[in-house]
Amino acid sequence: MDEFAFIRDHLAKLAGPGSESLSDDCAWLPTTDGWQVISTDTSVEGVHFPKGMRGASASERAVRVALSDIAAKGAELIGIFVNLTLPKNLDDKWAIALTQGLSDAKNEFGAHLLGGDTTRHNGPLVITVTALGMAKTKILRSGASIGDQIWVSGPVGDAALGLKYMQGDVPLPDPTGADLFLWEEAYLRPVPRFDLKTEIAKLATASVDVSDGLIADAGHIAEASSTRVQLKANEIPLSETSKRWVGNDPKRLIELLTAGDDYQVLICTKPTAAKWLYDSAFTYIGDVREGSGVELIDRVGEIIPVLQSGYTH
Amino acid sequence: MDEFAFIRDHLAKLAGPGSESLSDDCAWLPTTDGWQVISTDTSVEGVHFPKGMRGASASERAVRVALSDIAAKGAELIGIFVNLTLPKNLDDKWAIALTQGLSDAKNEFGAHLLGGDTTRHNGPLVITVTALGMAKTKILRSGASIGDQIWVSGPVGDAALGLKYMQGDVPLPDPTGADLFLWEEAYLRPVPRFDLKTEIAKLATASVDVSDGLIADAGHIAEASSTRVQLKANEIPLSETSKRWVGNDPKRLIELLTAGDDYQVLICTKPTAAKWLYDSAFTYIGDVREGSGVELIDRVGEIIPVLQSGYTH
Repeated sequence: MDEFAFIRDHLAKLAGPGSESLSDDCAWLPTTDGWQVISTDTSVEGVHFPKGMRGASASERAVRVALSDIAAKGAELIGIFVNLTLPKNLDDKWAIALTQGLSDAKNEFGAHLLGGDTTRHNGPLVITVTALGMAKTKILRSGASIGDQIWVSGPVGDAALGLKYMQGDVPLPDPTGADLFLWEEAYLRPVPRFDLKTEIAKLATASVDVSDGLIADAGHIAEASSTRVQLKANEIPLSETSKRWVGNDPKRLIELLTAGDDYQVLICTKPTAAKWLYDSAFTYIGDVREGSGVELIDRVGEIIPVLQSGYTH
Repeated sequence: MDEFAFIRDHLAKLAGPGSESLSDDCAWLPTTDGWQVISTDTSVEGVHFPKGMRGASASERAVRVALSDIAAKGAELIGIFVNLTLPKNLDDKWAIALTQGLSDAKNEFGAHLLGGDTTRHNGPLVITVTALGMAKTKILRSGASIGDQIWVSGPVGDAALGLKYMQGDVPLPDPTGADLFLWEEAYLRPVPRFDLKTEIAKLATASVDVSDGLIADAGHIAEASSTRVQLKANEIPLSETSKRWVGNDPKRLIELLTAGDDYQVLICTKPTAAKWLYDSAFTYIGDVREGSGVELIDRVGEIIPVLQSGYTH
């Protein structure tokens, strides 16, 4: 038995009003003038971030990842709860760095603390961040319709290369080190796209943040919306650095499109919304079609086979 | 350095509006007709509940403990988020039992799921429950005034004896086993006192749930309210079973008053509220005085020395 799947299936039966049957990135609670959105994410050392990454980077990244769900809904941030379960052997240096990471996230995104809990155990660092936001409009994974366009808020794949580099298994693309910094930043300090909240709130019919990989997250939209998502491989934005790493190797391209951790926002919009988006950070990368699943097509519309659709921790 | 205290002190600096400076049991977010209250608790196997207690009991208890904070504020429950971090070696039996525990808590208290996250790691079971409620009135730890009376919603100490028994170190008081069942129930299935929400919301000037021990939690009220709390030892309710265990041993009495995990509600009220409370579950156990700290007095007003004021996990 896959207990993991078992538990998820069983938890779904316990879902109540506001939970969206646990099928969205957030819970949606009605308020007098919109919606309160709440998302919670647990990051575990050695699973969601490398073993030993216990300091400022671990806590700051955990907050940014949780905020990303709120930002992807075009919502404004209210605040966060942070539950820290600390390894018994956490030393002074890490303790100072952990709080520094939370402080940095507060300064950059206004992620002030509403509450939390600090515990210790005989195990790895576990950080749960619960983020609250306020949205005017309800934008689910399930709102896409046939004929909608698909847009992404920025390059994908850099974070995956950052993680590979941190784990020591990526060849250097640039001996100056500039590329490595970009990749590492993308992994360690993903940017919740609060800067795009006006466009998202106004134009998105569906949205999701790219946490599991572009293809997997597009798949979440396809599944929740009972549609097929068609992505144009050559339109998907990559950083110059990552383009150099991909070169002409289609396997490397697929690797980046199926890698997670970028936390860009994927939105679906009516085609009439395009005129508002061409001058924005968003890039048009595909369309919502009849059917199911995700397909990746090349320049002439041929389907590119994709084996692995997303990252499983 | 005590990193634990260090982190808490530093987290307090990151607190924002609604957090009550992290000094209350809940965050308080204003709504159009009252307050949204939110509390989050992390329970760790081997720290907050015995190692190996991974099944229905662990998850049901974690939910009940989190709900208790909401109930202690006289609030109604909206729902819960559950973040499970599962040991790698969790087997089928435990997985089924875990979800059963959550299901039981849902059926008994309407604790339906709003969301959550399920992860795995190489460590003990970690359960974070974040509970949301709606309150008409804001009742903090800090609302007590000199002259207020102190009331508790039921017997204290049973849960501590339940835990002792589960850990194998309490002599049997009753060979029929009935007492052990009461104690174990008190530990495993503490009751969030939603049944008292009308009285609490209408009458309490301050409230707290008894999680760290009656004396420690009375101390939280004293500290937050800048007052002294005087508790009458002989008025504090104990179950018949626990009374038999205490006998004439004052050390045993102090042990129960400084033991946590009962999740009864301690409220402060104006003396004029007494007429509404005599017929309720609440028992009058003391008074709020000028000064600071908690003192325990005997039948003739002499101070009973108390060394250990609460449980540190």
